This record gives sequence, C-alpha cells and structure tokens, in this order.
Amino acid sequence: MISELTLIRRIRELAGAVDESLIRGIGDDCAVLAAAGLQTETLVTTDTLVEGVHFDLAWHPPELLGQKALSVNVSDIAAMGGVPRFALLSLAVPATAGQELINPLMAGFIAALERYGVRLIGGDTVKSDQGLVLSVTVLGEARAGTVVYRSGARPGDQIWVSGYLGQAAAGLELCRRSHELMATYSDLVAAHVNPQPEMTLGRMLGASGLVTAMIDMSDGLASDLAHICEESGVGAEVRAQDLPVSESTRQAAQALALDPMRLALSGGEDYRLLFTAPASAASQIDGLAGHAIGGQLFSVGEIVSGAEVVLINETQRRAIGFQGYDHFRGNLDLPQHCLQTLGTAKTSGSA
Amino acid sequence: MISELTLIRRIRELAGAVDESLIRGIGDDCAVLAAAGLQTETLVTTDTLVEGVHFDLAWHPPELLGQKALSVNVSDIAAMGGVPRFALLSLAVPATAGQELINPLMAGFIAALERYGVRLIGGDTVKSDQGLVLSVTVLGEARAGTVVYRSGARPGDQIWVSGYLGQAAAGLELCRRSHELMATYSDLVAAHVNPQPEMTLGRMLGASGLVTAMIDMSDGLASDLAHICEESGVGAEVRAQDLPVSESTRQAAQALALDPMRLALSGGEDYRLLFTAPASAASQIDGLAGHAIGGQLFSVGEIVSGAEVVLINETQRRAIGFQGYDHFRGNLDLPQHCLQTLGTAKTSGSA
Repeated sequence: MISELTLIRRIRELAGAVDESLIRGIGDDCAVLAAAGLQTETLVTTDTLVEGVHFDLAWHPPELLGQKALSVNVSDIAAMGGVPRFALLSLAVPATAGQELINPLMAGFIAALERYGVRLIGGDTVKSDQGLVLSVTVLGEARAGTVVYRSGARPGDQIWVSGYLGQAAAGLELCRRSHELMATYSDLVAAHVNPQPEMTLGRMLGASGLVTAMIDMSDGLASDLAHICEESGVGAEVRAQDLPVSESTRQAAQALALDPMRLALSGGEDYRLLFTAPASAASQIDGLAGHAIGGQLFSVGEIVSGAEVVLINETQRRAIGFQGYDHFRGNLDLPQHCLQTLGTAKTSGSA
Repeated sequence: MISELTLIRRIRELAGAVDESLIRGIGDDCAVLAAAGLQTETLVTTDTLVEGVHFDLAWHPPELLGQKALSVNVSDIAAMGGVPRFALLSLAVPATAGQELINPLMAGFIAALERYGVRLIGGDTVKSDQGLVLSVTVLGEARAGTVVYRSGARPGDQIWVSGYLGQAAAGLELCRRSHELMATYSDLVAAHVNPQPEMTLGRMLGASGLVTAMIDMSDGLASDLAHICEESGVGAEVRAQDLPVSESTRQAAQALALDPMRLALSGGEDYRLLFTAPASAASQIDGLAGHAIGGQLFSVGEIVSGAEVVLINETQRRAIGFQGYDHFRGNLDLPQHCLQTLGTAKTSGSA
C-alpha cells in the first residue's frame, strides 16, 4: 500500500507545479484563477458519491473509488466537449475510518488527477457521523462556440453511443449478488468500480463541429436519451437490434437471470457518450472512432419529431424514456419536484 | 410554510434571469460560463455541512440551514475580497426526509441566493442512506490584483477582527445543553444557526488596498490567526483585554459554566473577518467600518517576527495557536496529514 508520506509528497508536487491559469490553489479561503482568454468558456460540474447509495466498500477498492469520484465529473466535462482543468474535493470521513481507507482513496484520486491532467485547487475535509461522502467539483474549459449541449438534436439526426451498454449495471449486480462470478466477469466489475470517461472522444467530437447534442450516460440510455429529447424538443426511435451489448454482459445476465435488453436500456453508470449528429456526418464520425481513439461507435437510432422516445424491433414499437436508474437501492421517492428542477441532469431516478 | 409550487417557480425565475457571464446554467452536464474580462480573477471555494457533525436538525431550522450552507461559502469569497457570483449545490437527502424538511431547506437556500445576488448554476441531488449532507461550491470574482491572501501579513501590522468573538460557539452550547436559555440568548443562537458573512466589508477591504492578509474565522481566532501566521511566515501577539466579547456571551458563558476567553479564542464559526493592515492605515480602516458598513472593527493585537502566536495580558504571555475547534463532536482524530495538506484551510481540528 502507498505510504502516507508518499501521498503527501505527491500532493505537494501536484500543488506546486506551475500553471499560468492558477494564481493560488490549495491553502487559502478560495482558489484564485486568472481570467481565461476571451476565446474560452468555463465549464463547471459537481457530483457526489455517498456510501451505501453510490458505492459499497465491501467490494469497492478505495483506490478505485478515489478515481471514480473524479472520473464521473471528468465525464460531464467530456460530454460538453471540454477539457477538465481544476478540481475541488470535499471529503466527509467517518470517525471509524483509518489510514487503510483514506490513503488508498487519496492515492486513487491523485492518480486520476495525474491521468486526466487535472489540478487540485481546493477542498474540505470534515468528519462524518455516518458514511463516507465524496463530493467533487470540476472546472473545465472549451474553445468558445465549441461546447456541445443537450439541446441541439434535430429530426433526422442519427443517435450514437460510444461503447457497450449495461456493462456497469451488470457489474454492480455481480458485486451485489455473486462474489464467485466477479473474477469471471472482471471487465463488467471494472465498468462499475472504475469507469473510464471518454475524455479524448468528447473533446474531439466537440472540436469536430459535427455533433448536435451530447450527454454522458449516467442514468442509462433510455433516461439519458429522454434528457436530450426533452431539452431539444424532439422524439427518438431506438433500434433494439442495434443496441451494443457485449458477449460478457449477455453471459453474466444469463447467469444472474437478468434481461440483457433491460440492462442496456436502463442500466446506469456506463459513462459512455450518447450523441446525435446529422446522417451526412456518419462516415466522418466513424472515422474519428476508428483512427483517432481506437474505440467503437455504434449508431443506434434516429431523432424524430414529436416528444416520444420509442424502442423498435421487427414487430413492435414500445415507448421508453425516463427509466430511473436506481444506482443502488431504488429511487429517491420523496418530494423531489424542486430537486428535479434544480438538477435534472444529475438527479438519480427522475420520475 | 412555503409551497413546493412557489419554490419551483422561484427556482425557474432565478434560473431564467439574464446574466451575460452565464451561457448555460442548470440543465446540462455542466454549467458554462463566458470568460470574464481579463481584468478579473475567479475565486472558487467549497464547503460541506454534514448532519450530526455540523448541524443537528433537532434545533437547526431547515430554512436557516439552507441559508447557512450558502453563507459559509460566501464568507470564504468575502475573506479574499471578492464578490460571489455562482453556486452549485449537492444535496444528499435521507430516504426518510420529507417535504417538511426539503421545502424550507430549499427556500432558505434560495433566499440566500437572492440576498447575496448569487446565481445557482448546477447541482446534484442524491439519496443518502444516512444523514443529510449539503455540499456547496461557490465561484466569485475580484478585480485583478485586489485579491487578499492569507500570506501578506508583515511584522508591525495591526490585527483586526470585524465583530464579537465566541458568539456562535456560545450559541451552539446553548442549543446542545440548555433549550430553556435559547430564547434569552437568541442573538447567540442566531450566530450559530444563521451566520451572516461579511460580504460588503470583505469587498470594501479588498478594494481599499489597505489590508495585507485576511481570513474568515471558521475555526476560531487562535487557529485562524495561526493560519495567517503560517502562510505569512510571521508571529502574532494578541492582547487579551482587547478581545471583543459581548455582554450576552459573558452572561451565557456564566450560565453554562464556560470560560468566555476560551470561547473567544477557540470558538469556531463566527464567520467574522480577521485581517491585518499596517498601523498607518488604522484610521482609514476605522472609517470604513463606521461610515460604510455600520459594523464595528476591533484592533486586537500586532504581527511580530518569528512564528509564535501569543496571548498577552498585564502579567503573562501564553502561546496559543491551532486550537482545533470541534464544530460539534471533537476532532477528526484519524490519519489526517494528507487531508490537512489537501485542505488546511477547511480541515476542522488541525492538530
């Protein structure tokens, strides 16, 4: 395990590096950023991970949890076509938590900072009477005019996803229900405990100017597509046979008696990108994936007029839409209209 | 009680208002800010309030808790001489919490947004398995070159505080130990449940150019002065007889068998400003307080060379310094060196 001294040294190194946009990082009441060039727009996002709701330390290695707390925020920046720059970490730590939890957690967070080229500029560490809570804010930037919103999808646009669906949800079910199968399906477990945000792809899609709307899939395809449709004032048709489900997910679903199609539609936390683009841009987009990122993009449907999100196969049309991925334990079934208004983007389990 | 519909309407109104710096607020993966003028610097701060650690709903009205979650962050912006502009709210809500908690909490948060002229641009609402957690990030701005750091105090500077000390700590003790006295000392209870950040004073002090170092007192005079001394590489002498303790605090301390001097030195959460300035600026600073803000400033000591923070009276010199205000239940006594390195500014109970 990484030692505390190593951690402290690495935090100091990270804090000491020169960055012309950062006037003051950790160590004062606020971080101070220089004004970015007027050709730049600033992106800001925040995400909170709560023990027992978003993660269970029984199977989530603290190092990967530390990484994930940053990754899910980096994913939001990627989904707008931006580059992450600065992070603030608020950590509420139970009094019972010791070095064996905190050191690897921080080591993982630091490793993710380094991997994504993100600078830690502030934070807040408090005692928690109850579980561990990680709340991360990330600031990013994008060239003015290149930011991709959820609101630009137009009828006729193709709908794309940037990887397999339902992997993280299958992984979570394995962690919950079948520890002996976790080793067999380590790719699915990894998708849940250590999601990889599409940082490069998001930036390239933003810069390409080809994409009309984009979101990262945290709540599952159905809900996240419903967000795009709602914001864009359009409907969507999704082709069931084109939904990318890996062989691994199919096998795990069978072993767990789950419906792979349900995992693909409403399994959350895959953090793949879901985006729309005119049909005329299809070959360029395919090219981006193959040549530049080595990943795989799948065209899964089409934006249509109206407001309905529909799943189609040879014989049927079925309305899908907000499916309320539960992350862990079921929806937040309390008066949440005002919470939804506050944070549609992030509310797990919209009704 | 405020209705949910009223709340939603007010959130929408707040979200809909035009602001030339804000390209996109709530409703996408990130908020998008236009680049500020190159004469502007951006301030970023975050603070988390955890149920059972920072507040107890047994006596903390939810509306005031909602206000406080924003106020403590606005206080950090004020302590750098800046103006708060944008906020993100992450709310982890227990499954047992109903409308009677969430509605007034949000109403209080919204009232504080309006009072401080802060725009809500994002957030995240998740279910908590355990207590309520509010994590707020605030972005502010200041004219380039006017930001006041903790690091500028010089030997010979006077040390100032912007109001009475130990009020919030006395209020917290009343809430904990003596519900029947809460009405008698409502000013002290208010100092704990509804602190008022020094937004105007902070901005004026920043703009004045007179101040060499500044911090908001969240951990108590002794610890917060120790932060300034540490960052500035200086020591300090505090004159015991000049510490401002209100009559109300003295009486409550007597009723609770507490030492008022101890409350003044290590009682946290007063959120008054602690700052330093050359002796030659004294009358101008006094003038700022009297004419412009109607508040009262107290000169309580002097910056000296060395590294010691000392309390002096007619007969004694006593080393003070980091006193570790416990907020609620005692210090976070776990391996926290790396946490301290991460967030010295905000870690409650530095050793």
